[in-house]
Parts: sequence; C-alpha cells; structure tokens
Amino acid sequence: MPPQARPCHESGAPSETLAVDGQEAAVILERVRASVDPELRAALESLPGSLRRVALYHFGWEHADGTPAAGNAGKAIRPALVLTAAAALGGERARAAAVRAAVAVELVHNFTLLHDDVMDRDTTRRHRPTAWTVFGDADAILAGDALQALALRLLAEDPHPAAAPAAARLAACVVELCEGQHEDTAMQGLGPDEVTLDQVLVMAEAKTGALLGCACALGALYAGASTEDVGALDAFGREAGLAFQLIDDVIGIWGDPSRTGKPAGADLAARKKSLPVVAALTSGTAAAADLAELYAAPYAEADLARTALAVEEAGGRDWAQAQAADRMARAMGQLARAVPDPEAAGGLLSLAEFVTRRSA
Amino acid sequence: MPPQARPCHESGAPSETLAVDGQEAAVILERVRASVDPELRAALESLPGSLRRVALYHFGWEHADGTPAAGNAGKAIRPALVLTAAAALGGERARAAAVRAAVAVELVHNFTLLHDDVMDRDTTRRHRPTAWTVFGDADAILAGDALQALALRLLAEDPHPAAAPAAARLAACVVELCEGQHEDTAMQGLGPDEVTLDQVLVMAEAKTGALLGCACALGALYAGASTEDVGALDAFGREAGLAFQLIDDVIGIWGDPSRTGKPAGADLAARKKSLPVVAALTSGTAAAADLAELYAAPYAEADLARTALAVEEAGGRDWAQAQAADRMARAMGQLARAVPDPEAAGGLLSLAEFVTRRSA
Repeated sequence: MPPQARPCHESGAPSETLAVDGQEAAVILERVRASVDPELRAALESLPGSLRRVALYHFGWEHADGTPAAGNAGKAIRPALVLTAAAALGGERARAAAVRAAVAVELVHNFTLLHDDVMDRDTTRRHRPTAWTVFGDADAILAGDALQALALRLLAEDPHPAAAPAAARLAACVVELCEGQHEDTAMQGLGPDEVTLDQVLVMAEAKTGALLGCACALGALYAGASTEDVGALDAFGREAGLAFQLIDDVIGIWGDPSRTGKPAGADLAARKKSLPVVAALTSGTAAAADLAELYAAPYAEADLARTALAVEEAGGRDWAQAQAADRMARAMGQLARAVPDPEAAGGLLSLAEFVTRRSA
Repeated sequence: MPPQARPCHESGAPSETLAVDGQEAAVILERVRASVDPELRAALESLPGSLRRVALYHFGWEHADGTPAAGNAGKAIRPALVLTAAAALGGERARAAAVRAAVAVELVHNFTLLHDDVMDRDTTRRHRPTAWTVFGDADAILAGDALQALALRLLAEDPHPAAAPAAARLAACVVELCEGQHEDTAMQGLGPDEVTLDQVLVMAEAKTGALLGCACALGALYAGASTEDVGALDAFGREAGLAFQLIDDVIGIWGDPSRTGKPAGADLAARKKSLPVVAALTSGTAAAADLAELYAAPYAEADLARTALAVEEAGGRDWAQAQAADRMARAMGQLARAVPDPEAAGGLLSLAEFVTRRSA
C-alpha cells in the first residue's frame, strides 16, 4: 500500500496495514513519553513556586489546587518527531542524544498554547479549564514566558554540537509561531469576504507547520545530517503539519465533542475562519453565500447545524480532506528524499499518518 | 570622595566630582547606544511585518502609524553594563565581542516591559502610550514573545565560547524576572497590612536586580572571567539594581512628571506597594496607620498629596534613600573584589552612580 494520507477516518474499519501503523505510532508515542516525561518534569520542577504550579497544572500533572493529577499532557507528537527523525537519520545514539531537544520543543509548544489561550480567550484545553481561567491572565502569560526560557536554557546547557544550531532554529521558529498567531487573531477580526485561502494557508503553515517542521529538523541536526536533509525533514514536518491542521479544522466542525474535549461546533460558534470555512467561503457556490450570511450575523445556537451543512455543501470538507491528502503526499516525497530506506523512514511515516487520521 | 550613593539629587548642585562622573556615564551610554543600536535595529528589522511594527514602536523608532520616529529607546543601562563589565575584565577586545550579548540583554529587558505593561494595564512608557494600548494585548504579548526568542537566537548564533553559558544564564534570569513580576502582581492584590518589607525586597531583587546582575555577569563571561568574578559582578549588578529600584520608587512618588514621563504620584494612585510605601506601612508609626487607611480606601485625587506626606512622615523616603546607599556600598564591595584596579572599575562605578542619581 502506498504511503498515502487517509485523513479523518472517524468511522469505517481501517485496513489491516493502517491498524498496524496506528499501533506503531501508539508504541512510538508511549516510548517517547517514557523518555521525555522525566526530563520535562524535571525542567518544570526547576521553576519557582508560583510558575511551577501553573505549568504543572497546564501539563496535567497537578489539579488547580496543587494536588497531583494523573497527567494528560497531550500526545507528545512534537517530541516524537524530534526523536524519530533523529533515529531515522542517526540511529539509536542520535535518538538518545536528542531527548533534551525533544523536551525543548514540547516546552515551546506549551508556551504558545498558554499564550494563545489567553489571547483567544479559549476556556477549555485537553478537557480541562485553561490556565488563565484558573490562575488569571498574568500568571498564564508569565508561565508561558518561563517555558520559552526553559526550552532555550535546556539547549544552551546541552554540550552536544547540534545544540547551538538547534537553539537558533527553535528561536527562529518561535518568531514564526508568533507571526502565525498574529495572522490568526487579525484574521478573526475580518469579515467573511475579506480573507483569502492563500492567507489562511500561509497562517496555518506558520502557526502549525513551522513547529512540526522544526521538530523534525532538530532531530536531523542531532543526527548530524546534511543541510539538505535537515531542510527536507523540515519540509516533511511542515507539510505533515498542514495536513494535521486541515484535519484538525475538520474535526473542529464535525468532530465528536467527547473525543475532542471541545463543545460541538465550537470553531463555528466562535466564527473561526478555519481552513474548511475559508475554502467554503471562497468557493463561489450558493452555499458560500449562505455561509457568509450566517458568519456575518451574531452566533445563534439554532444555526450551528445549518452552518456546518453550508461549509460541507460549499465543498469545504471535501477540499480540506483532499488538500490534506495532497500535503501528505508532498510530505512523503520530502521524507523519501532524506530517508530513502523505507524501514528507517517507517517511524516518521507512522507518526504522520497517525496525526492525520486521529479523531481527537 | 568615596564611591557612596547620592540618591535622588533632584535639586541642588552636584559636586564637581559627581558632575564629572555623570558626564562619564553619559559618554559611556552614548558610546553604547552607538555600538548596540545598529545590531539591535537589525534584529528588530528581521521580524515579520506585524511584530516588527510593534517592536519598532515600542523602541521608539516608529510612530504608531509606522512612520519613522526620532527614537527614545531608553537609557541602555543594561547593554552598557554588559559592555562595561566586559571591558573592565577583558579590555576593548572583550567589549567588542560582547555587543551581541548586550543586544540580547536589551531585547530581554524590552520583552518584559511589553508583557509587564499588558499585565499591569500601564498606559504610558517613555512618555508615549504603551504598545498594548496602540496594538492590542495580543500583538503586545506576541511582540514580547518574539523579542525573547530574538535575544536567545542572537546568542545561539554567536560562535564566541561564552555564548552558550551566557544564553543559559540569560534564560535562567528570564525565569527569575517572571517570578518577580508574579510576586509584584500578587502583592498588589494584598491588603496594606499583608505585605512584609522582606517580601517586597525579594520581589524587587528578582524583578530588577536579576537582569542588571545578569548583564554584568554576561560581560564578565565574555571577558573569560573566573566563576568567582562572574559571581561578584552578578552581585554588583544586583545590589546596584536594588539601589536603582529604591530610587525609582522614590521618583515614582516624588519625581517630576515632566522628567519621569508618568503622571505625578502614579504609583500612589495605583496603590502600588513600592519599597518606600511598604517601609512606611511597616514602620509602626502614626503616619503608617494613616497611610494604611488611605491605601485601603478607593483612590481619591484629593488624597494624593496627603498619601505622599504619610509615606514621608512614616520614614519611607528616608529609609529608601539610606537603603539605596547601603546597597550601593555593597555593590562597590563586590566590584572591588572582581576589579581591584580603580581605573578599570571606573566605568561600572560611573554607571552605578548614574542610575542611582538619575531623576528621570
């Protein structure tokens, strides 16, 4: 079976091959958590009291009252990309050396989540109230600031020769993430007819693709890969990241709330100009006009199903799924360039397919 | 004349020696701006459009509408400490090598200003509306995030052997700055009788002393100084930083608005638990009780002069000035330890005296 994307199989039995792939990704992610969590936790424990509490809460290791929690720190996809890319290009030794970089990427990801939630006034993250709703804006901003500093400190203290270029690349990626978030918030203030599909694709690449690409590039750097291979792995991660965002946006409209941790249709209710929505709005169809009208009016609960239907009828859902498949194909091309051995590339392939098939 | 602090000479003719010192500091600061500004500006220009605009506005190089401005990017005391410390311990060569570190420290300082202004809802900075009032909270937060990333990127891309330890130290300092700001905001929510002088001194050291100490330590690192000398210069900067904060707090109450860029008595109006205020509140005097009562009531314009008088009568102003002198004496002790040659130490001495005598 060719390494094609099969996005968003929320129902229907996956093929045996994909089932095995899904299991492989689950095994990879579990192993990544096992090697990353102790270092991640040690980094958070190094924070002074107040910031530590916010951080441990955000990562799901503490309840709001400071008592220990089971932990639900996300799927660790970004650290998994760092370690799996390192292993693909440099074997087990590179994988072991890259753990600190994997933790740094996860810290940066969570710093942006803490800040984005404040800016977007999002109240739920990973099925729990967001940090700012519990600790206030100031402490959520400060905890985010501290996580960015922790990430770059970890790399500055890493004697590995890849640590400095990795830190430079991660810092450059933070700037791109900020630009993506700026574009996202700026776009939310525009009318339904003022946003182009190109704009929103560029925004999604900066906001989501950049860090997934950076994670893969950091893994390649720790494997001592050539500049070309580092670039190819960055491109692999970016394309897979866009596929991931496309599917995430599909789930944001049609996903099962019990699995997404967000209320049904939350993105539509927030009038979010997500990728399927903008594709629908710019489709020139009758449904597009209907959708533009719905989006221009204040939110009404009764219109939620009608809004989702308009996005679908205007082709937003089909476009997003086809676009995700296309991005995945491009990602596979970049991966094959840097890691021609299918066995060595298997882990990254599994992760990319996992993130684009997930339904939560 | 011994190197004693002479805090807050807002009126009265300074002695000839101090005039010369003040001139020396002015010459140092001008020279620092000349070597730091091009690199600083280049770093800001590397930002993507929207974040660049916020940053250039914040640094005073652009007006809110994006047209060029004369620039009023602050006094560059922190970069001056980096470069002057480098020169004191390693001569001109170390000074030249440390320019990137000086820029990094200035970027970190301004990242914290951008974020602090959002959290504190401060509307004026350097005589101009703060960035969040012009561009909104989200863009001010994002610009701050990007400045932190730029700072650590500059050091990650610096091939100097001191760059990695300097980056680690600067990142650790960011965490301390965040903790200081957390303590500050938390304290503002407490009643006048719930804050101890120790608490507010610890907070001030984290919020202000830490970065001035870090600036000096980075200069020492770039000069290849011993661990002991790096530590002594850090302590010098911390003590001078506390002296600076004590004087800044005095100015926040009794300073001339045309020179401070803030409305008269703004700190009192905001019910800020600044160092002289907490010293007054915890003095056990009759004026302390009066002050506590004034601070517990909602702000009334008519009470502003009475509040300032209560702080003064309870000994808050005298305490702050004596404490500043004491901190400066400690700073001098640390400086003499690391740089016994008075001529080599002269620059740092001038800077320390400058910041504690300034009236704006």
